[in-house]
Amino acid sequence: MVDHLPSPIEWRRGCVRLLDQRALPHSVRFVDCRTVEELCDAITTLAVRGAPALGAAGAYGVALAAHGSSSSSSVHAAAARLASARPTAVNLAWGVARSLAAYEQSGAAGALGAADEIAADDVAANEAIGRNGLSVIPDVDGGAQVLTHCNAGHLATAGYGTAIGVIRAGHDAGRVAHVWVDETRPVLQGARLTAWELHALSIPSTLVVDSAAGSLMAAGEVDLVVVGADRIAANGDVANKIGTYGLAVLAKHHDIPFVVAAPWSTVDLATPDGRSIAVETRDPDEVTEVAGQRIAPVGFRAHNPAFDVTPAALISAIVTERGVARRPLVRSLPALRPR
Amino acid sequence: MVDHLPSPIEWRRGCVRLLDQRALPHSVRFVDCRTVEELCDAITTLAVRGAPALGAAGAYGVALAAHGSSSSSSVHAAAARLASARPTAVNLAWGVARSLAAYEQSGAAGALGAADEIAADDVAANEAIGRNGLSVIPDVDGGAQVLTHCNAGHLATAGYGTAIGVIRAGHDAGRVAHVWVDETRPVLQGARLTAWELHALSIPSTLVVDSAAGSLMAAGEVDLVVVGADRIAANGDVANKIGTYGLAVLAKHHDIPFVVAAPWSTVDLATPDGRSIAVETRDPDEVTEVAGQRIAPVGFRAHNPAFDVTPAALISAIVTERGVARRPLVRSLPALRPR
Repeated sequence: MVDHLPSPIEWRRGCVRLLDQRALPHSVRFVDCRTVEELCDAITTLAVRGAPALGAAGAYGVALAAHGSSSSSSVHAAAARLASARPTAVNLAWGVARSLAAYEQSGAAGALGAADEIAADDVAANEAIGRNGLSVIPDVDGGAQVLTHCNAGHLATAGYGTAIGVIRAGHDAGRVAHVWVDETRPVLQGARLTAWELHALSIPSTLVVDSAAGSLMAAGEVDLVVVGADRIAANGDVANKIGTYGLAVLAKHHDIPFVVAAPWSTVDLATPDGRSIAVETRDPDEVTEVAGQRIAPVGFRAHNPAFDVTPAALISAIVTERGVARRPLVRSLPALRPR
Repeated sequence: MVDHLPSPIEWRRGCVRLLDQRALPHSVRFVDCRTVEELCDAITTLAVRGAPALGAAGAYGVALAAHGSSSSSSVHAAAARLASARPTAVNLAWGVARSLAAYEQSGAAGALGAADEIAADDVAANEAIGRNGLSVIPDVDGGAQVLTHCNAGHLATAGYGTAIGVIRAGHDAGRVAHVWVDETRPVLQGARLTAWELHALSIPSTLVVDSAAGSLMAAGEVDLVVVGADRIAANGDVANKIGTYGLAVLAKHHDIPFVVAAPWSTVDLATPDGRSIAVETRDPDEVTEVAGQRIAPVGFRAHNPAFDVTPAALISAIVTERGVARRPLVRSLPALRPR
């Protein structure tokens, strides 16, 4: 199923080719980044987004810098710019650091090899997340109804997806019947990207506004909420797209399992809890304009936090390629650490 | 303060003149409805919306029919069409019935007199709601931060507003410092209408996406949630704009007062509880298109419930012009009934 979706990120003859997520769902086009500056711009303008995809993008960015320069100091400077292009997803800095270490050992070829490995590992991790995730899908006659927020799919990763990986594996196994897709304002990753993926994958799904989740839950129309993550703290607190926290509170109120799916590279054991996670505040125009059209009065102020933090106490399970951490996450999550 | 906002609905030489809410906030224009068909179209396309405003619109619609026809049966048929133009707001059918009864007694002049009285009574009721609402605003040094959803303001009424009436009175009294305005997808009544009103009234306010409410509450940035209502059942359950229920659950989780402000005409003692309230499902295009631009893939399905039902147990108080009903609402609300 992966194969007929175009690769979200790949190396092409000296440039980083991205499936341009700004143009979806209306057109499938690619942007070729030939410099680190072009790649940083693609990252900040969300041509590529999603924590695992940002890990691969950061790593390929170091390879790009290394191929364009013989100076170690300029590669280090480029790495620093890449790592700070967006603050919340831990994978970005992690991918940059891993590729930079390979560059230090083996030069440009080393950096590219590390980036290719990160991308390949990510696809394999996501497929494992899908398999592991089968254990968190409630048994429902005819299949479960799953609600997801933002896009933690093929497009947010090097391929297959994390939260959507669980949905895909569940659908393939006959365990998921239908998906509610939160549109995910302001950038509409649900309406634009998750809808595009699920449509391409022929998984039955329906778009709703973000604020409809509560009444769907009250009506018994949601059996599971599954989302991705941008950073998971050591105690199991999760930073993810704005609105995730509200869904977790609603899921608890309705006694519906609330599950986070993410590769181990999103777990940041150096961050003790959610209070230590920097939440990116983005341009207010993302709120006051939709598709280039202004919706609010001129001069009206907007606040645009891109993420929120969901405390571990509201999370039923975190599904990784290394296994499933269940409550209490503060003990089960670090236990999955590679030895 | 009312005076410099144009009247949302009024009778003008044989037609019903509406401030066209479809064009806000970008242009202030009016639509003159000369027939019941034009008015029904204005109601279904949301040129006029908001439960109390729909009460006045329905009443003026009967006057329009009565002025255009000498046949009682055609006035009754027009009244039936008006009353069923939208199903959830009880005020619409109530305004139609009251104007029709006056028509039966006194003909076209009676219907117009009843409509004028409904509009004048509504403004007076909203001003009383504002005064009564002062008692539900938490005492906060420097003034409270209030979050509101959709538009329950001047534009949703014959003037002044219900939820925004409470905010206006609170701001005038120095008790409200700042308002968080939920954008209120899909129709963006918050971003377009509430923002326009609060801007015109110079009340400090900030627009956020609907799904940001949870993290604002977690950060201690919300002292009170106040919303309007489309129908209030006898036990205190409230139908209001989609997303209201989710806010009520979040407010309970954070121990923040959740208050509904509405005129007595929105209370429907004939409806025992929320399960009996018909929730309008609107065109999926409202979700899949924003400002005429398609946001979702072509052919992707959307579900668009316009309202949800918040159970009385999640509501701290209902503020009416007849007084404030507090928990348990099932006892306090019917006690406010006119004798």
